[in-house]
Amino acid sequence: MKPEYRLHYAPDNASLVIRLVLEELGQPYETVLVDRKAQAQNSAEYRALNPNGLIPVLETPDGAVFETAAILLWLSERHAAMAPQPGSTDRAVFLKWLFFASNTLHADLRMLFYPDKYIGGAKPHQDQLQTVLRQRLHRHLTHLDQAAAARPAWLGAPQPSVLDYYLACQLRWMALYPAQANKSWFTLAHYPSLQRLCAALEHRAAVAVSREAEGLGATPFTSPAYANPPEGSAT
Amino acid sequence: MKPEYRLHYAPDNASLVIRLVLEELGQPYETVLVDRKAQAQNSAEYRALNPNGLIPVLETPDGAVFETAAILLWLSERHAAMAPQPGSTDRAVFLKWLFFASNTLHADLRMLFYPDKYIGGAKPHQDQLQTVLRQRLHRHLTHLDQAAAARPAWLGAPQPSVLDYYLACQLRWMALYPAQANKSWFTLAHYPSLQRLCAALEHRAAVAVSREAEGLGATPFTSPAYANPPEGSAT
Repeated sequence: MKPEYRLHYAPDNASLVIRLVLEELGQPYETVLVDRKAQAQNSAEYRALNPNGLIPVLETPDGAVFETAAILLWLSERHAAMAPQPGSTDRAVFLKWLFFASNTLHADLRMLFYPDKYIGGAKPHQDQLQTVLRQRLHRHLTHLDQAAAARPAWLGAPQPSVLDYYLACQLRWMALYPAQANKSWFTLAHYPSLQRLCAALEHRAAVAVSREAEGLGATPFTSPAYANPPEGSAT
Repeated sequence: MKPEYRLHYAPDNASLVIRLVLEELGQPYETVLVDRKAQAQNSAEYRALNPNGLIPVLETPDGAVFETAAILLWLSERHAAMAPQPGSTDRAVFLKWLFFASNTLHADLRMLFYPDKYIGGAKPHQDQLQTVLRQRLHRHLTHLDQAAAARPAWLGAPQPSVLDYYLACQLRWMALYPAQANKSWFTLAHYPSLQRLCAALEHRAAVAVSREAEGLGATPFTSPAYANPPEGSAT
């Protein structure tokens, strides 16, 4: 039987979060490589799925869904797992941190990785933007670390949430990208509750399968190495 | 009886979206003015509600909620109104545009309005960032206008959704802010489906009440004027 889900992915891109969650949910899916070297995310075919030309897209029985956090939230609702469900008392607090992870942490990360899309090609402009972004990211992580320290059921608990995987991947990327830049500003150990969250996830079967599929190495969150994927490229 | 909701607001800030939706839902609430002139959003008391020091915060029976879109989504679930509900076939597509409105449109707008928070105080840096952001915003609005042209039940339909109000407010702010900048880049009529959405909302009772409360003038979305609020200040 054809799986219900079809994930358009590139190795170690935001699609990784969706793969991890589909694995954790035990949901079958097929993958379609988006060839970044050929700028396939800008093709007419891909833009028909996501007009913004961003990865991932998840094709579902309810249509093509984009926006990483939207896919995460929708999967958690559809399979009634990995998040406080609608109507539960934890729902409001979960949603506020999920949106924060999406519209502040992830939005700032995108700028750090692709400054040209926000300020053009001049190096001094890019350097200044990235300098301020690193300070912002440190503040964001401090807030998230404080939220995780309380060990709510949906952040750093033994049963991982969609937000756990979302944060672990973002922490991975901060340690690795942009590849040519100095990464000394970022030290996972400065955020002990987030570090604990990352370490716990690395024991999950879902992570082992995803590591293999995208060539992520032994410790993809606590001590990440650049991806060496069996197909495609991360950048 | 004390209302269940307590909205920390400043006139014509992101809190306006929450006020509009509470009015549309017919839910009682009290308001607490955040005195921006005194930087009250950075006080220890306010940061205990939102560590990021951003407006709005909605105090609820389930705790203090921040992030505009998180509050919108949570209210739509709690009152089973103004959005496709969990489990419905429109849910996935609604969520993707809600997250897009939050983490792309609104995130870019915040940078346009407060470039110093992203790139520091140098005018040439700010100018360059704002130039690229205006191009980005035009693309985002084009995508949203195309989505609205299909008139799905949750975008520009006769019964407004939380996303309708969120977009209408963002369109208002694009026409007005930053106050000192040239706004000729933005013309609502370039996005006819969004313009129609704005015009339809202006007939709602929820808008009349909110206009009064925050001094927004007769046509707050289609032809906005700067707020002249009975208390507090927009900036």
